This record gives sequence, C-alpha cells and structure tokens, in this order.
Amino acid sequence: MSTQSPILIVGSMAFDDLELPSGHATNVVGGSATYSSFVASTFAPVRVVAVVGDDFPEGTLGSMRARGIDTVGIERATGKTFRWAGRYDADLVHRTTLDTQLNVFASFQPKIPAEYRDSPFLLLGNIHPALQLEVLEQVRAPKLVVADTMNFWIHGEPKTLAALLARVDTLVINDEEACELSGTRNVSRAAREILRRGPKRLVIKRGEHGALLFDEYGLFAAPGFPLEDVVDPTGAGDSFAGGFLGYLAGLPEVTPLALRRAMIHATAAASFCVEAVGTSRVATLEKSDIARRVSEIRALYDFGASTM
Amino acid sequence: MSTQSPILIVGSMAFDDLELPSGHATNVVGGSATYSSFVASTFAPVRVVAVVGDDFPEGTLGSMRARGIDTVGIERATGKTFRWAGRYDADLVHRTTLDTQLNVFASFQPKIPAEYRDSPFLLLGNIHPALQLEVLEQVRAPKLVVADTMNFWIHGEPKTLAALLARVDTLVINDEEACELSGTRNVSRAAREILRRGPKRLVIKRGEHGALLFDEYGLFAAPGFPLEDVVDPTGAGDSFAGGFLGYLAGLPEVTPLALRRAMIHATAAASFCVEAVGTSRVATLEKSDIARRVSEIRALYDFGASTM
Repeated sequence: MSTQSPILIVGSMAFDDLELPSGHATNVVGGSATYSSFVASTFAPVRVVAVVGDDFPEGTLGSMRARGIDTVGIERATGKTFRWAGRYDADLVHRTTLDTQLNVFASFQPKIPAEYRDSPFLLLGNIHPALQLEVLEQVRAPKLVVADTMNFWIHGEPKTLAALLARVDTLVINDEEACELSGTRNVSRAAREILRRGPKRLVIKRGEHGALLFDEYGLFAAPGFPLEDVVDPTGAGDSFAGGFLGYLAGLPEVTPLALRRAMIHATAAASFCVEAVGTSRVATLEKSDIARRVSEIRALYDFGASTM
Repeated sequence: MSTQSPILIVGSMAFDDLELPSGHATNVVGGSATYSSFVASTFAPVRVVAVVGDDFPEGTLGSMRARGIDTVGIERATGKTFRWAGRYDADLVHRTTLDTQLNVFASFQPKIPAEYRDSPFLLLGNIHPALQLEVLEQVRAPKLVVADTMNFWIHGEPKTLAALLARVDTLVINDEEACELSGTRNVSRAAREILRRGPKRLVIKRGEHGALLFDEYGLFAAPGFPLEDVVDPTGAGDSFAGGFLGYLAGLPEVTPLALRRAMIHATAAASFCVEAVGTSRVATLEKSDIARRVSEIRALYDFGASTM
C-alpha cells in the first residue's frame, strides 16, 4: 500500500572541483537539488526545478529519470553550469571555498511547471531567499515546506530571509548558521529564537555530531553515524534534507514520531553520501540500504526500553 | 536490595580560579577526585585518596562525609592545595589555562589505606600515569578499573601511559586526547587503535556533543544533554566518570546493557555539573535528580521501538 506523495525540489545543479585529502576530483556532478533528489527518490516520486548549462551531462539527467525523478522542470540554458571549487582540511570537517562561478545560475528564475504546482512536499534548497519565496508563490497549499539557507543570505538578505522564515514549516540549517541567524552561541537558545520567527520546527545539522530536531513536542537528537572512511562530505547536508523529506513523503501522515524517524533516515542517507566522491553513492541508493543503516543507528542508541 | 559496591577514587583536589563569561570565581573547590566522588556517592559508597593543603576547607570534607564518602584516604599536607586558573571562551567550550600551581600535589604519593585495598571499583583520575600504576599495584583484583588521562601525559609520558593502558579496563578521555593518543583524526579509527593497546573499552567524551562508548559489543552513542544555561563546564568530565562508575557500582553485574545505561547516567550527572559554578550542584545531587534527567535524555532519543 503506497502512500507516496510527490516531492518538489528546487535548488542548484552544479559541477564541483574538490580538493579532498584522498586526492583531487574535478567536474564532479553536484548541487543541492542533485544530491537531495537522488536521495528523496529512494522514498517517493521527485520533481526537480533547477537550471543547468549546455555542458551538463545528459547521462546524469538520464540516471535521475531512471530513479523516477521528473526532470521536466530542469531548464537547460545556454552557457556553463554553476561551478564550485573547494578544499577540505585533513579532518574532513572544515572546508574553504576556492572559487564560485554562478554561470547560468546567476539568472536562474525558478519556473514551476503547471503539473508540479500541487506538490504536497516542497524542498527549497539553498538559493536566494527571494527565489525561494517566488517558488512558494507558485505552489498551491503544500503540506510541508522544508527550506535550507546559508551564511551568505543570513548576512546579505536578512529581510528577505525573515519573510521566508515566516512561511516555511521546517528550517534545516547547520549549527554555525543557527548561531549566526539567532545571534547566540548556545544551540538551544538559538533554536528558541529561530522558532519565534516563524518555522514550526527547526533541524540543526552538526556534521559528524548528528542533528537536532526542535519542534512543538520537544527536542530529538539524531546521532552522527560514525564512519571509519569518510571520503567526501560534499552534499551530506543536502542528502540529509532529501532523506528527511523523502521519508515523510512516503508516509500517510506527518506525526511527531514520523519526524523523529525522518531524522534517523536522513542521518542514514547522509552517511552513505560521504562514503564516496560526489553523488556516486546516493545515485544508486536503495530503500534496503537505508533500512540496514537505520538498524545500525538504532543499535548505537539502544540502552533498553525498560525503566532504569 | 542493595548491591552497592565501594568505589575507590584517586585524583586531585584543588582550588580553581575561573574566568567565566558570567564573571570571575576564585578559590572554587575543585579537582577531579572532588567532582567524581560527589557524583559517584549518589550511587554507591566512595573512598577517596588525594592530598590537600592546610588551606583546604574542612567544611568540604564534612560535606563529603555527609554523603557517605570516606575521607580517611585524603592526606592533609603542610602547604598549599593544588591550584588551577583558567579562562573560558564565550562559547564555554574552549578554555585556556592561565596558571597551574601544583603545591602539595607536586609530591603526592598515593597511599591506599589497608581497608580500601579490596575496592571492587577503581577510578584513576588524571594524575601522572606512574602514580596511577602505583595505585593499581596497591589494589587487590578490582572488578573494574576506569582511568582518565590528558594531553600532558600523552606527550610527556608515552611509555608509562602505554603500561597503564595495558592494565585498565576502561579508558575515559575526550576526543582531542583520543586523536593525539592514536595519531589519527577519525574518531572510529582512533578508538580501534587505542583498544588495540589494552583497554577492553573506551569512552570518548565530546563535550556538548555527548560521548561514545566503544566496547566488544560495538558502539554506543550518548547524546549531549542540551542546556540553555551552561554556567561552568569545569569538572564535567570528572562528573561523567563519577556517574559512569557510580552507576555500575550500584548494580550486581557489569553487562553491555549496564555499560550503556551507565553512559546515560554519566551524561545526566555531567549535565547537572555544568549548571552551577564548581561542585555546588553535584555536591547535593540526588538519585531522583539523575532519574529525572535520564527520562529527559530518553525522550531526546525516542523514535519508537518498533521496526520502521
């Protein structure tokens, strides 16, 4: 009995040039929409709105379609695809942006195809908050809206971001962003302040330390899944968001328990992402892979169900 | 039906001068043995071996005895008590040592009273590894030995520390120390390397991000307990160790499940510690306080017992 609802994902598609401790990888297909749609398609049908240049490989779009991802909303513009270059430290935690070339992404105006406008689940990847608001205008009464953002918009577009926050259900950001957005260094205080500004719930990603969900029912802590071989952290946050929303889209109802389980499925998805360069692992992710890792995460947590 | 076994704690007792974001606090009673014995005494009888100077307040020793802590092994030497001065950053995570005065601690030679030598549970606080080994020589077949150490000994006394590692059951250190001791930045690899050197299990403390237990049954992740008001992190690690061993000493058997629950009780104990300056909160800690916070930690984790 399938209750899968379609997910609309709007975000970037890109080429990444990655300086990793294990070596350099260039022209790696990336972007927030790419990572999150590959992951979300493990759970539910996905529709993507993004822009690529004429250099973007048709093969990647074919791989997406093979997973049931609707690519009709991916605009192929004349020019080069968005490109990001970064260098990771040996700890694979800190990274430095070496270069950003917006290319066709500079004039991206998300146009939501008519047949996408009733999408019940909406993932607004990290793009200009004005564009995120434009997408919201074009979608009819979505059931759940998840948005990501980043430091660049927190500092550069505070008013537009405030307008967005008032209209999203769930904000998914990392701990640094939460501190900058709220102006406090304590994660619990930061969450309280951000929730005051609009979102019904907040997910704070903490990299290898897991992620926290703050909602009206309290706080839930998903652990980081410890891996001996982290290869490439690029896209982990986008994979997390795709797993979070994908899991929910596969359920009949968004309940507090479903949200908590979505955090665990998101953690599992992100842990696969970082095990290989670029989208190579998430592009072939199966539900059974996720289920296996969810069991492993459950074991990480198990201290017995009875009272102590 | 009590199955409480006595715990022997050997470590430092000190005065701390603390520069905290909330203000400066001087002559604060501290030290690893002080924090851990206050916490452990919540669960089981405690015996302490340490040294204080003639300036150490008799009132603190009285408070310890009032909690069932045997202070016969605390030597009062002529001179000043060990003193540490430190400054915490605004994030209450990073700290800088401003001054260390060993004073009477410089010539500390732990002498284990005859009536302490059958202690089944032993906590070797962070002192010179040669002294930790001397304590081990004086104790008859303890059931469980938990040791702490620090960067200073990892770099300065690698051989003595190696001899100690070969003889302890459980090493409790923080993530930086685990990386330095193992020579790797990946926490899972670090754990594997350290376990290869002797300990049966390893606890890696990660401050606000919780703690990990690596043992023969796998990995367990205890979450950090999110607090809006962290006042003073001093002694959190010692409180964790005291809670970990204290909980185990109150049980008939050390099982894998008991160890996992000990991690949660240790987390609860540490979370109380940081809510007030110095030992002021842990000095009055009750079992019911711990039980209440353990329930709150359980809620942090709850994503349903059934399969997903």
